[in-house]
Amino acid sequence: TIATEVLNLLHPRHDLAGETILITAGGTREPLDPVRFLGNRSSGKMGHALAESAAARGAKVILVTASPLPAPQSATLIRVDTAHEMQSAVLAQLPQATIVIAAAAVADFRLREVALNKLRRNGPLTIELEPTEDIVAHVVANRRPGTLVIAFAAETESLEENARAKLQRKGADAIVANDVSLPGLGFDSDSNAGLFLTGTQTISLEPASKQVFAGRILDHAIALRAQTVFRTEKELSRT
Amino acid sequence: TIATEVLNLLHPRHDLAGETILITAGGTREPLDPVRFLGNRSSGKMGHALAESAAARGAKVILVTASPLPAPQSATLIRVDTAHEMQSAVLAQLPQATIVIAAAAVADFRLREVALNKLRRNGPLTIELEPTEDIVAHVVANRRPGTLVIAFAAETESLEENARAKLQRKGADAIVANDVSLPGLGFDSDSNAGLFLTGTQTISLEPASKQVFAGRILDHAIALRAQTVFRTEKELSRT
Repeated sequence: TIATEVLNLLHPRHDLAGETILITAGGTREPLDPVRFLGNRSSGKMGHALAESAAARGAKVILVTASPLPAPQSATLIRVDTAHEMQSAVLAQLPQATIVIAAAAVADFRLREVALNKLRRNGPLTIELEPTEDIVAHVVANRRPGTLVIAFAAETESLEENARAKLQRKGADAIVANDVSLPGLGFDSDSNAGLFLTGTQTISLEPASKQVFAGRILDHAIALRAQTVFRTEKELSRT
Repeated sequence: TIATEVLNLLHPRHDLAGETILITAGGTREPLDPVRFLGNRSSGKMGHALAESAAARGAKVILVTASPLPAPQSATLIRVDTAHEMQSAVLAQLPQATIVIAAAAVADFRLREVALNKLRRNGPLTIELEPTEDIVAHVVANRRPGTLVIAFAAETESLEENARAKLQRKGADAIVANDVSLPGLGFDSDSNAGLFLTGTQTISLEPASKQVFAGRILDHAIALRAQTVFRTEKELSRT
């Protein structure tokens, strides 16, 4: 209930003690020239709220952020600018993580060739973009067995369908899908709403403040972890 | 002297009473699709510092900003996102301005066609850009006689040469040139340094906090206004 959630915000349980949660946040920026960049509208509020919430619940938190938001209390903070910097930081921290939550919105494209000096505005300009690193795919490929990976999908159409396709393509354990075309929710706003999808489940995440929303994601992460541990033990007992 | 400047920050003279100063600030964002954009690294700190300082010195201030920074005290605030929105707001306010200071960093290019839904990261992508509105040129063309126009130039090479060319091309009365390639100065930082150029003068602006820097720009603006009034009166007396 809402009352329980409010109480939990005030007096957090230490149910994440023992976990090391690696969280990405913010929108990365890919330079076009020394002053202009390709960016993503993510404010970083969701990722920073997850970091605050996880730390309050006893987890060791490592936050890799492209957002200018202030550092959350009791989290290790690593500030990055580009997708490449974010990936390097994440892969360096990955070995110690038990849960990875990729809340950052990576600017998925970067310039094939970055201009060394400021481009002049003389007329039309054609620029060639190439995809940036797929950070979640690299995390899935390089994680230790048992490390839970939760991705985010910001969609503007066919929310569940696109997010489920992304979940499968990336090989993550779960994906938080949010519809950023809804006014007052998602990017830059203080609230969020969406779906928590696993390979077998579709759970609705009702509109809530990013603090409450963060708590629910962590609740679902713990439940998913319990299932995974149970399944792994069952598989082990069969061999 | 520095001491005088500190005293002025604490106890501002009301030497801008009677002036209406229209200030632009921040970096505009041009959408690529609903989540990605082309942006400019300007933080808006310089423009917001100018607005604070001008208001403290008795001016009526209208701030058109693309920055998420909080509203300065006693300024009329208009928030915008794109260059087109900024230009519309500026031209609407222009008739009442006696001084215009264009501190915003406009994302000089926008997409020829904006994607309505999120672009998929499937491979390389070629995008066509076109120049955005030239806000300062429109201000110069549409200002009332006597309205002073001060532009900004953020340069990464040949500072004075590029800024002087921009001053002439735009027809502004003065231009504040800053070298954004210097570490610790300009974009995103709390300090600034550069040159104040008029048609006949090159004045060095030594490194200073953006608050002190803003005060110096306003000092030079007042001096320039006095010269302009004197020249206009001389011309009138000759006829």
